[in-house]
Amino acid sequence: MKIGIIGSGNVGGTLGKRWAHNGHQIVFSSRHPQSEEMKKLVAEAGANASAATIAETVKTNDLLLLATPWPATQDALKNAGNLAGKVLIDATNPLLPRLAGLEIGTTTSGAEQVASWAPGARVVKAFNTVGFNIMENPNFEGQPVLFYCGDDADAKQTVHQLISDLGFDTQDTGPLKQARLLEPFAMLWVSLAIKNGREFAFQLLKR
Amino acid sequence: MKIGIIGSGNVGGTLGKRWAHNGHQIVFSSRHPQSEEMKKLVAEAGANASAATIAETVKTNDLLLLATPWPATQDALKNAGNLAGKVLIDATNPLLPRLAGLEIGTTTSGAEQVASWAPGARVVKAFNTVGFNIMENPNFEGQPVLFYCGDDADAKQTVHQLISDLGFDTQDTGPLKQARLLEPFAMLWVSLAIKNGREFAFQLLKR
Repeated sequence: MKIGIIGSGNVGGTLGKRWAHNGHQIVFSSRHPQSEEMKKLVAEAGANASAATIAETVKTNDLLLLATPWPATQDALKNAGNLAGKVLIDATNPLLPRLAGLEIGTTTSGAEQVASWAPGARVVKAFNTVGFNIMENPNFEGQPVLFYCGDDADAKQTVHQLISDLGFDTQDTGPLKQARLLEPFAMLWVSLAIKNGREFAFQLLKR
Repeated sequence: MKIGIIGSGNVGGTLGKRWAHNGHQIVFSSRHPQSEEMKKLVAEAGANASAATIAETVKTNDLLLLATPWPATQDALKNAGNLAGKVLIDATNPLLPRLAGLEIGTTTSGAEQVASWAPGARVVKAFNTVGFNIMENPNFEGQPVLFYCGDDADAKQTVHQLISDLGFDTQDTGPLKQARLLEPFAMLWVSLAIKNGREFAFQLLKR
């Protein structure tokens, strides 16, 4: 395939190189297609790769990877020209500066609402990311993980123990407001369960 | 441990039974502690289990599992009495009727913003849920999964192929607005990477 890369940093660079090595034709683009970094990237990607401006890349490719830093995304698309009919793979994430969270899309969580309804309670979000059938029987070929988050360290330690006792791997994900991530995770499980059936879970792979 | 269960449906019932069988002291509660379902649940849970009103359960337990359907949650906490100092494990999810999505917490996504900046483009959200180091080398003891979503079937088929070719398991998660779930998933990866290092990914376990 011919693939144009808009934004040639870590993600765009890595994917473009792997695709070029697999035999795809890659055009890397960025605001500075003549930069030293870009020359280095094209050299590493080999004979199947070249560099161009964003506008040229869009003109000559119907399949595009968008891998810009979030603050550069709107400008990159403004400079892209006509995108009608193009396949645009969006690999961006609307991250706040210093990876502090998501800039758009998430505003609060059920857990924060619950905490506001239970004054003084030490709320820990947990047991919300898989269906009850998985809580009943967590036996797979790998070990499924359950996440939790909360603001009280002792309360979290208790929950950690309760999760482990049931046969799950478990992972502290931070303060209670991380429920803004765990509840969408739950909704992902629910939507895949509706689509594919309920007998699945997620394992945390480490190396 | 002594654990009070607020909301004794699928999740509260399943966890309470497993904990009772493991030797914990369980009190199940709901709006109808004398119902036939509750009697059946207590019988199945065995000698370590009993049933009570929500208020009684809160009074006699410092560790509580909240597992109510979302629309019943505020009322349950209103009926709970003083929760100050209690550990409250929140297993609820703010699900819309018919599991159509999350009622609070998510409003839009970067992908929908990108689509608005790229008129006519066939946007597929993908390659956003792990770091570039995992895209470079997806080799673990299990096979990591990459998700995608979008509104154009042909474009999604192309992306599916590109993901598979790189050595990942892959999973269509539905229309583009499912990026409201995949971007928080990405942020979860980012926040765990900051905490624990970047050499991890998720596997989809099936049975």
